[in-house]
Amino acid sequence: MRDIGAFVAGQSVYIAGQADGVLAGLKFAVKDLFDVKGVPTGAGNHDWPFGRPLPIRHAWAVQALLDAGACFVGKTVTDEVSLGIFGENPFDGTPVNIKAPDRVPGGSSSGSAAAVAAGLCDTALGTDTGGSVRVPASFCGLYGIRPTHGRLDLSGMLPQAPSSDTAGWFARDAKTFARVSSVLLQEKIPTVLPKHLVIAHDCFGFADPEVTIALKPMVARLSQIIGSSREDVMAPQGLSVWARAQRTLQPAEAFDTFKDWLDERNPRLAFSVARALVVGSMLPESERGWARLMRQEVRSRMAWLLPSDTVLCMPTTPFPAPRKGQRISILDPLRDRITCLCAQGGLAGHPQVNLPGATVDGLPVGLSIIGPRGSDAMLVALAQAMAWNF
Amino acid sequence: MRDIGAFVAGQSVYIAGQADGVLAGLKFAVKDLFDVKGVPTGAGNHDWPFGRPLPIRHAWAVQALLDAGACFVGKTVTDEVSLGIFGENPFDGTPVNIKAPDRVPGGSSSGSAAAVAAGLCDTALGTDTGGSVRVPASFCGLYGIRPTHGRLDLSGMLPQAPSSDTAGWFARDAKTFARVSSVLLQEKIPTVLPKHLVIAHDCFGFADPEVTIALKPMVARLSQIIGSSREDVMAPQGLSVWARAQRTLQPAEAFDTFKDWLDERNPRLAFSVARALVVGSMLPESERGWARLMRQEVRSRMAWLLPSDTVLCMPTTPFPAPRKGQRISILDPLRDRITCLCAQGGLAGHPQVNLPGATVDGLPVGLSIIGPRGSDAMLVALAQAMAWNF
Repeated sequence: MRDIGAFVAGQSVYIAGQADGVLAGLKFAVKDLFDVKGVPTGAGNHDWPFGRPLPIRHAWAVQALLDAGACFVGKTVTDEVSLGIFGENPFDGTPVNIKAPDRVPGGSSSGSAAAVAAGLCDTALGTDTGGSVRVPASFCGLYGIRPTHGRLDLSGMLPQAPSSDTAGWFARDAKTFARVSSVLLQEKIPTVLPKHLVIAHDCFGFADPEVTIALKPMVARLSQIIGSSREDVMAPQGLSVWARAQRTLQPAEAFDTFKDWLDERNPRLAFSVARALVVGSMLPESERGWARLMRQEVRSRMAWLLPSDTVLCMPTTPFPAPRKGQRISILDPLRDRITCLCAQGGLAGHPQVNLPGATVDGLPVGLSIIGPRGSDAMLVALAQAMAWNF
Repeated sequence: MRDIGAFVAGQSVYIAGQADGVLAGLKFAVKDLFDVKGVPTGAGNHDWPFGRPLPIRHAWAVQALLDAGACFVGKTVTDEVSLGIFGENPFDGTPVNIKAPDRVPGGSSSGSAAAVAAGLCDTALGTDTGGSVRVPASFCGLYGIRPTHGRLDLSGMLPQAPSSDTAGWFARDAKTFARVSSVLLQEKIPTVLPKHLVIAHDCFGFADPEVTIALKPMVARLSQIIGSSREDVMAPQGLSVWARAQRTLQPAEAFDTFKDWLDERNPRLAFSVARALVVGSMLPESERGWARLMRQEVRSRMAWLLPSDTVLCMPTTPFPAPRKGQRISILDPLRDRITCLCAQGGLAGHPQVNLPGATVDGLPVGLSIIGPRGSDAMLVALAQAMAWNF
C-alpha cells in the first residue's frame, strides 16, 4: 500500500467482511469519525480520544458494509472534528491528492477521498455537514454522495452540526459507487432516470469561468440523457445569503456539540478550527433566528425546483483544489466561495452526487446532481447512465 | 535534579558563567521565551520553533546573568506564547508547584517559579505582561519582580504586548533576590527605604477575606519599617474597569504580535489560548481607544499615589493557587479576578515586587509592594528589610 498519508498513522486494522456478500471483494476505509469496535476514534485531533472508552460496537454504516461483504482496511485522516474544508490537518498530516499532488485533497473527509483516489481501497465512508464529501470528491475526481439528510442511521458517527450532518461515501467508478450505494441506501438502484434537468445558472456563473467551460460537455451529456432541460436560478436570495445562513447555523451548532469537551479539556486545536468554534460561540440568537428563517426559504426553494423526476446540476466547487500550505488569509475567502455552492446541502438536506470527469489545467473538478429528498438512488442511477454514455 | 516538569523536556544545556562574577555560585534558568544561543526558543508551543533559525546570541538578560557569573542550567516551561495565568500547558506539561502540589504553579512564568521554589536553581527569568511573574511568585511563595516598564533591555525576549511587556525574575530568599536584582537593574541596592506607605484598601477588600487576614501581619511589619502609613483607594474608577482596559489592550496587542504567525502556520493552540487571540482580533478600535484613555487615567492615578519615597501595598493575587485541571468555565472568572489586581502593572508600568511569607490553609499567597517608576531597587531594598525583620 503506497503511503500517501491517507490512513491514520499507527492504526493498522483489518476486518474481514461477511463471506459471499454483495460487496465481496471490495475493500473499504472509514473516516476517523466513525466508530470501529475496539479502535479509538481519533476525530483528527490528538486530544479527542483522551479519557474516552474504546467503541464497543461498529458504527451503523461500518457494520452495514461488513455485513455486505466488504473488508475494512483502515481509518482515514479527517480535518479536526470535521471542521475544515481543505483537508490540511496538523495532527495527522495532509493526505496526498494523487490527482494533484501539490494541491489539497479537500476536507473534511480528506483521507477517505485520497485513499479511494489512490486505489488504496475501493470505497470509503466520509461525512458531509457543509461539503465534506462533496468538496474532496470534486478535488480528487471521485464519485461522492451526500445522501438525503436523515436517510442513514448515523449511530457511531461523531456528530458536528446534527441538523446538517450526513454520512456519505466515495468511489472511483460508477459501478462500484452503485454497488456500495445500494447497500448503504438499502435500496435497489433503479433503471428509471429523471425526466427534467434544471441547470442552475447562478451557480455556474459563480464558479470560475474555466470550471464552467470544463463542465459544459458533462452538462450537455446530462441534458441529452435526461432529454429535457431548462436554466433557472437556484438561490434567488443570493448564494452568499444562503452561505451566510449555513455559516451561522453550522458553527453555532458545532459549538453546542463540542462546548463541554472544550470546557473540560481545553484541547489543542489548529488556530483556524478554534477560531470557527469561538465564532460559533459568539453568534447572537438574533442571527441564528434569521438563519433558521432563511433555511426555511432555502427548503421551500429547493422543494419547488425539484419535484419528483427532476434533477438540478451545478458545479460542486467553484474551482479545483487550491495549493497546499497556503496562509489562512488566502484560504478564508476560498472557503467562503465554496460555502456559497455547498450551503444548500446543509440547509435543505437534498441528496447530492458529485460526478467526476472534468479537469481544469489537469486538476479535477466535479459536476453535482441534486434531486428531491429521498431520490438518492435515482441520482446514483443517473451517475451510472452518465458513465455508460462516456 | 528532581523532575517536577519545570524544565522543557529534552533540553539539557549548561553554560558556565563568567568566573569570579558577583553572582558566582548561583544557578539560573530562563523561561522559554528568552533566547539562548544555539537552543531553539520554544515559547511553550510545539509549532512555534518551526522554520525559525536557532538564536545566534543570548537574550540581553541571559547574557547579563552569565557575565555576572551565574551558570545557566536550562529553559523552563511557559504558558503558550506567554498567554495564560495559571501555568497549565498541554504541550510541555504543567510544572509542579512544590508548595501546593495539587494546585497550579501560576503562569505564564510557571516553570521558572516552580524550578526556583523547588530549589532546582537559585533564580530564574520570567516575563510579566499581565501578571506572569507576580502571579506565580504569589502562588509558589517566592520573591518576584515586575520591573518598571522599559527599564530592562528586552532584546532576545519574545514579545507579547509590547506596551505592557517586562522581564522579571524570582528568588527564594531576599539576599539572592537582591544580588540578582542589582545585576539586572544595573544598580546598587540602596540602604535608604521609602518613607510613606499606602495601603490600597480597595485591593485588600477585593481579595478573599482569608487572604487579607493572612497578609495583615506583613502589612503591619511594613508599616512599622516605613514608619508612616495611610489607607487609600488605588483604583477610583474601579478595579474591574482597570482590568477591562488591560483585557482590551493586551489581547489586541498580542493578536498584532502573533497574527502573521497564526496566518502563515495555522498553529495548534490550546482552545483557551486561541480564544484569547480570536477575541483580541475582534476588539473594535472604539474599545481600544477607550482603553487607551483609561490607561492614561491609571497612569495619572498611580503617579499621584506614588511620589518618591512612597510605596503602595496590596495583595498580589486575590486568592492562593487554584486546583489543577479545572474546567475553563471555572478558571475564566478566577482569571478575571486576578486581572483586577494585576492590571495596574500592565497599564501604568510601575515596578512591583511580590513578597512571600503568608499562607492560607498552607497555600502561599504574596503581598505586593509597588513604587514610583524607576524605584525598582528601592523595592528590593524594602524586600530585604522585611526579611531582616522577620
